[in-house]
Amino acid sequence: MKLRKYFLLSCLLFTIAAAQAQQGPVYKYIDAQHLSKSGQWPKSTENYYRIQAAERQALTKAVQTLSLNPAGISITFQTNSKNIAAKWKLNPYRVMGNMSPLGVSGLDLYGWNGKKWQFAGVGIPSKDENSRTLIGNLDGQMRHYKIYLPLYTELGSLEIGVDESAEIKPAAPEYLNQKKVVIYGSSITQGASASRPGMAYPSILSRKINVETINLGFSGNGKMEIEIADLLAAIPADVYVMDCVPNPSPEEIKERSYPLIAKLRRLKPDVPIVMVESIQRQAANWDNQAKTRLTSQNAEFKTSYDRLIKEKYKGIYYIKSAELIGSDHEATTDGTHLSDLGFLRMAERVAKELKGIL
Amino acid sequence: MKLRKYFLLSCLLFTIAAAQAQQGPVYKYIDAQHLSKSGQWPKSTENYYRIQAAERQALTKAVQTLSLNPAGISITFQTNSKNIAAKWKLNPYRVMGNMSPLGVSGLDLYGWNGKKWQFAGVGIPSKDENSRTLIGNLDGQMRHYKIYLPLYTELGSLEIGVDESAEIKPAAPEYLNQKKVVIYGSSITQGASASRPGMAYPSILSRKINVETINLGFSGNGKMEIEIADLLAAIPADVYVMDCVPNPSPEEIKERSYPLIAKLRRLKPDVPIVMVESIQRQAANWDNQAKTRLTSQNAEFKTSYDRLIKEKYKGIYYIKSAELIGSDHEATTDGTHLSDLGFLRMAERVAKELKGIL
Repeated sequence: MKLRKYFLLSCLLFTIAAAQAQQGPVYKYIDAQHLSKSGQWPKSTENYYRIQAAERQALTKAVQTLSLNPAGISITFQTNSKNIAAKWKLNPYRVMGNMSPLGVSGLDLYGWNGKKWQFAGVGIPSKDENSRTLIGNLDGQMRHYKIYLPLYTELGSLEIGVDESAEIKPAAPEYLNQKKVVIYGSSITQGASASRPGMAYPSILSRKINVETINLGFSGNGKMEIEIADLLAAIPADVYVMDCVPNPSPEEIKERSYPLIAKLRRLKPDVPIVMVESIQRQAANWDNQAKTRLTSQNAEFKTSYDRLIKEKYKGIYYIKSAELIGSDHEATTDGTHLSDLGFLRMAERVAKELKGIL
Repeated sequence: MKLRKYFLLSCLLFTIAAAQAQQGPVYKYIDAQHLSKSGQWPKSTENYYRIQAAERQALTKAVQTLSLNPAGISITFQTNSKNIAAKWKLNPYRVMGNMSPLGVSGLDLYGWNGKKWQFAGVGIPSKDENSRTLIGNLDGQMRHYKIYLPLYTELGSLEIGVDESAEIKPAAPEYLNQKKVVIYGSSITQGASASRPGMAYPSILSRKINVETINLGFSGNGKMEIEIADLLAAIPADVYVMDCVPNPSPEEIKERSYPLIAKLRRLKPDVPIVMVESIQRQAANWDNQAKTRLTSQNAEFKTSYDRLIKEKYKGIYYIKSAELIGSDHEATTDGTHLSDLGFLRMAERVAKELKGIL
């Protein structure tokens, strides 16, 4: 009888131990709105929209909707936790043909390694509400970390999980970049089709030259409407990057690019503006219609640049298409959008230009 | 009255013209089984499995199932069509968290540009049965093209569409590589998480050094069972690449790697064997358990290599982990699997080794 009791007790203890082992770390969660946010303008503790309601009003409906995607926003914090987790709600979880769910709706974590931000782990989504450990078995030293938010859907909420006994708090000021680079563009700027959010080129650029990038890429809708000048000018930028050739037609570029950039220059006389041609769409190497369109788009943009220079506008820079993504034709996922390979090449070229300017 | 008739006739003609314009090119389709296949062994005109039923029998159930995915298989053909399309049936269309549907279940098209295979277009899937134009408005010159097949699901059928008046036929022999490189490995070899099928590193390698690569990457299941030696030896390879460290445990590598490679060497005494360590899993830079596992895996593989060399086995080469994917920590999608950036770096390193050998 005693033996049987002992056996049952052992079974019970074993079951509890096994259940605890399966559970893994016990997390406490903190709302990411209480940590340090980059890439949003103006900053809000209410949402993860790239731009806020007042600033959205004059924009097209499509741009307003896309501005709700937190592309380029990151959360920086410090913790001594040995494990880092996240719970996030998407609005909604989406599947896109040329991007991974991780890029569309996921998270990636970087840690400060003493010299730079270094990739550490990811949260791969599978539905609207997700809960994932991003990295485990850390050394428990107090350290800064950064999480990049989804590129192509809305984020309803984000909570960061750390060990129950660990500390978590906002970033120290020296881990947040002061200089701001505002990048206006298309799906390529927004981050299609990076493998994970931190590989969109504005975010690579941010890590390479230690600036805060504000990602104003609006998929399919970066069409150079004149109202964009007011939006850009309202942001206290140190540089503007105009990567907005891919979406508008050649005719639209002819009509809109000179007035847009001239207006931005008048509103912000001292802030450098970098004009970037469209990347070489790969179809344009084969498809005669695609070639004509792409060549005309870049030619119209160059004509506007030449006119600005001729009219003595100052602080305007220009990056040509051929310099952006290499010449091996392997830098895109689908001919139009960049893979991480293309994004790294593009970030390196833009970084070189900005280093010369800043 | 006459005027009204003329108006109605004009409307009718306009409607017909508009309908034709919307339809786009009219294609005729040819079963890809009648064109030229690479990356399959032995070749079959019945299916798109990487290895055939007789050769699968001795393998684990999981490896058998994965061998049905056409990772690394490509279809080469020549046509003078101005448009190229594809219809393909998947079994099934799948969504994976760390890959795009294009990589999992899609197609990518390369054209011979006179010097090399150059990327031209993609077919992005959205369901089990898909129909897409891959490229349009070509110059109509007779030219060779190559289509890479899905990486992570079965392909039930594939038909290539060309203009009704165009010719399409199998590749001329000089466009098909004679030398064969057989690569045995894990999900990384199979192609997770390339942005499109042609960016899996065995396929990049094939284009870089003009060899036919046979992709024997079995996601999560490249575990060095001794039966793999017979499978590999049955293929008339010019080089074997053993990229099989990521899946087995350190204990399994200790037990299995020496016998596997020693057996392969006995079966194929004159064929070079390149042993490749596991890439640096990014979690291992942060997670102490992941670091211990990775370090032990590579150390056990190196111990087997050292023993083979000490015992005077000839023609065995070794590539160290640190040389594979760069040192910026940006080459993976999720810490474990490579993006196109990582795949290009890995292909470059393996290509360098193979150029020295072949």
